[in-house]
Amino acid sequence: MSRLRGKVVIAQGGGPTAVINQSLVGAVLESRKFREATRIWGARHGVRGIVGENFVDLSEATSHNLERVARTPSSALGSTRDKPDAEYCQRILDAFRKHDVRYFFYIGGNDSSDTVRIVGEHAVREGYELRAIHIPKTIDNDLPINDHCPGYPSAARFVAGALGGADADNRALLGVYVAVIMGRHAGWLTAAAALARRHDDDGPHLIYVPERQFSIDRYLADIDRVYRRHGRCVVAISEGVWASRDSKGKAIPVTVDLMRQAGREPQVDAHGNVQLSGGALADELADAVQRRLGIKRVRADTFGYLQRSFPGVVSDVDAREAREVGEKAAHYACGHGTSGSVVIERVGDYAVKYELADLKAVAARTRHLPDEFIDAEGNGMTEAFRDYLRPLLGADMPCLEQLWAPAAKLDND
Amino acid sequence: MSRLRGKVVIAQGGGPTAVINQSLVGAVLESRKFREATRIWGARHGVRGIVGENFVDLSEATSHNLERVARTPSSALGSTRDKPDAEYCQRILDAFRKHDVRYFFYIGGNDSSDTVRIVGEHAVREGYELRAIHIPKTIDNDLPINDHCPGYPSAARFVAGALGGADADNRALLGVYVAVIMGRHAGWLTAAAALARRHDDDGPHLIYVPERQFSIDRYLADIDRVYRRHGRCVVAISEGVWASRDSKGKAIPVTVDLMRQAGREPQVDAHGNVQLSGGALADELADAVQRRLGIKRVRADTFGYLQRSFPGVVSDVDAREAREVGEKAAHYACGHGTSGSVVIERVGDYAVKYELADLKAVAARTRHLPDEFIDAEGNGMTEAFRDYLRPLLGADMPCLEQLWAPAAKLDND
Repeated sequence: MSRLRGKVVIAQGGGPTAVINQSLVGAVLESRKFREATRIWGARHGVRGIVGENFVDLSEATSHNLERVARTPSSALGSTRDKPDAEYCQRILDAFRKHDVRYFFYIGGNDSSDTVRIVGEHAVREGYELRAIHIPKTIDNDLPINDHCPGYPSAARFVAGALGGADADNRALLGVYVAVIMGRHAGWLTAAAALARRHDDDGPHLIYVPERQFSIDRYLADIDRVYRRHGRCVVAISEGVWASRDSKGKAIPVTVDLMRQAGREPQVDAHGNVQLSGGALADELADAVQRRLGIKRVRADTFGYLQRSFPGVVSDVDAREAREVGEKAAHYACGHGTSGSVVIERVGDYAVKYELADLKAVAARTRHLPDEFIDAEGNGMTEAFRDYLRPLLGADMPCLEQLWAPAAKLDND
Repeated sequence: MSRLRGKVVIAQGGGPTAVINQSLVGAVLESRKFREATRIWGARHGVRGIVGENFVDLSEATSHNLERVARTPSSALGSTRDKPDAEYCQRILDAFRKHDVRYFFYIGGNDSSDTVRIVGEHAVREGYELRAIHIPKTIDNDLPINDHCPGYPSAARFVAGALGGADADNRALLGVYVAVIMGRHAGWLTAAAALARRHDDDGPHLIYVPERQFSIDRYLADIDRVYRRHGRCVVAISEGVWASRDSKGKAIPVTVDLMRQAGREPQVDAHGNVQLSGGALADELADAVQRRLGIKRVRADTFGYLQRSFPGVVSDVDAREAREVGEKAAHYACGHGTSGSVVIERVGDYAVKYELADLKAVAARTRHLPDEFIDAEGNGMTEAFRDYLRPLLGADMPCLEQLWAPAAKLDND
C-alpha cells in the first residue's frame, strides 16, 4: 500500500465532453478520502496551467458546487490543445517537484495519455516518486483497449436523437438531408446515427465513415437509389471522409475533390495547406446532389460543437462511468500506489469493470471501427454495431413514433 | 350551438416543430367527442393532400399510437410549402364539398392562416357551410395577437441550451464562437440565446437580430471589445440579419456584403437571384473575425434543422399549450359552430387563456421583436425579454454551474 504523501494535481485536456466534469468530480471527491493526498489542486487549461503554475485549490470547493459542476458539460477547469514534447513534460515534472505534487490525474484522449506516459517516464528516470494516471475521455471513442470511452455515449445519444428528429423533419417536407458529424479519423460518432432507425423506411438511409474510402459517384448513385424508392433520403457522413490521397499518401478531404469537380479551387495558406471553412463539406455535398441528380430540395447541416457539449442530452450510463473512472484513478494512485491508464472493459450484457492498463498500450494510438461494424456495401452499419451501442445510450431515449392510420375510403360520387 | 354534421379534415403546414403533433392529437381526440364530426380525416402533406385527395382516416388511429405521435417531433401527417392562391383555395373547397367536409383545422403559421381565411371566404360566398379554424404553430414566434406561438418555446429551449453548452465549451478552449440561428425576418429565436446567461461573464456576449440594421464594422468592434475583456467571445446571430438594401429597398443578406468585402462575388442563378449555401453566413462571419481582428481560434456553427425537430428537448409548457390549442379548435368549430384563429393570451404570471380571433387580424402578418426587448446598443436583449421568455422554457432547464475554487496558495521556495 502506498504511503506516499503529497499534493494531487488534476487537469483536463483536449476537446470537452458532456460528462468530463463527472470524472473531475469523481477524482476530487475520492482523493479527499485518502490522507496520502495532502491537498487537491486543479490546473487551469490542462498542462498549460501546470507549467504556468495556474492552479485552483479544489480542497476548498464545496461538495454541492462540485456535484452541480459534475452535471455541467465541458471542461470546468478549462482545457488546452497543447501537445507536450519531452522538454514540455520536463517542465511539468519540475512544477510537480517544486510544489510536492505526488499524484497526477490527466483526463483526456490519446494525446493526454501520451503526456502522462512521458511525464511518468521522466519521473522514474529522475527517481522522483510520482503516481500518474490517465483518465479516459473522448467523444471520438478511439482509445485502444477500452470497450468505449467516457463522453462518447452522450455524444452518440445527441447524434442518434438529432438524426431521428432530422429524419422526421425530412419525412414531412421530403428531399435530401445530409448531416456532417465529428470524427476526423474514426467513424464511431457518425455510426451512432444508425441508432435513429426503427422502421424499415426510417433514415439515415446512408452512413459514410472514414474507415472506408469514399467515392463521390457511389455517394450520388446511393442517394439516387434511395430517393427513387422512398421519395427522400437522409445521409450521415463523417467530417473525415476522403476519396483520394496526395502524392505522399495523405488522405485529401472530400471537400477538395468536390470543389475541383465543380470547377472551384480551394484556397491555400502561406504554407500551402488547404483552407476549408466549417460548413464547406456539407455545402459541397448538398451542391453535388442538386447539380448532378437534379433534386431540388437538398439541405445539409454541420452538427459542429453542439454534439459534444449539449446540456441535458446525456446518457446516464455515460455519466456514471465517467464518474467511476475518475474515482478509480484515486484508488489506483492513492490507494494502490500504481500508475497507468484507467480502461473500461465490458463484462456481461450490460455491465463494465475497470482495469489499469499500461500507458504504452493506450498512448497515441487510434482505434478504428472494426470491419464487423460496417456493412458490406460500406454505406451503413451492421446489427453488431447497433448491439454494441444500444446499452451505452442510457435510459429514456426519446421514441419516435409514426402515425398509424389507414387511407381514407373516398366516397365514389 | 352547431348541429352541422360532416367530416373533419386536419392538416399541417409549413416548417415542422417539436410539438406540432400535440396540436394534431389534441384536435383529433377532442373532435371524436362531438357527434357533429362524422369522420376525422388527416390530409397528407398539408393542402396538397386535400386537393390531391390524399387522406388518412384518423378515426381508425388508436389513442395509444396518437399519444406516442404527440410526443414525436415534426409533422406526422407530412407538411408542404405550398402557399395557395384563390384558385388553389377553390380546389380545396371543391374537395371539401365532394367529401362532405364541414370542419377544417389547419395547423400552421402565417401562410396557413391566410389559406384558412381564403377557403372560408370562398365557402361563405358559395353558401357552403364550413367551420374553418387556424391552429397556431411556428418556431419563428411571429404570429400577431398571440403572446407566443406553439413550437417557439421548445425551439427557444434548444437554442438557450445549445448556447449554454457552447459557452461552456468556449470557456474551456477560448477564442470566438459564432452561432447562426433560424429567423429570416424576426429575431425571436435568436433572442432566446440570452437565456443561456447566468453569471456576468457568461456568453452569449453579443446577440444580433434582423430588427436592427447590422453593421459589419460594429460587429467586429463589439467582438474586439469583449475579447479584450474576457479573452473570449460568444455571439448569437439571426440568419436574417442585413446591413444594406438594394435599389428596390430589399434587404441584402449580410453574407453578400461580407463576401464582397473579402473580394468574392456571390453566385447568381438564371433569374439573377443570389445563391447562398447553408453554412455561408457562419463561414463568412468567422472569416471576417480571423482576417480583420487577427484572432486565431474562431469557430462558427449553423444550428440548421436541429433547432426545430430535436427529440427530447421540449418545453412542457409548450407541449401542453400546443395540445390545448388543438383541443380548442374542436370546441370552437364542432361545439360553438365558429370559425377563426385560436390565439394564446398571457394572463397572470404565468398562465394563459385561449381566444378565437378574426383570421383577418392574424393572416399573413409578421410580429417583430418590440423595441423594449432589444437593448439600446442593439447587440443584446433586455431584462424585459428575459422575463417574457423564462416561463415558456418549461421545467428542468439544465443548470450550468461554474466551478468555485480559489487560486491555490503556491509554496514560496
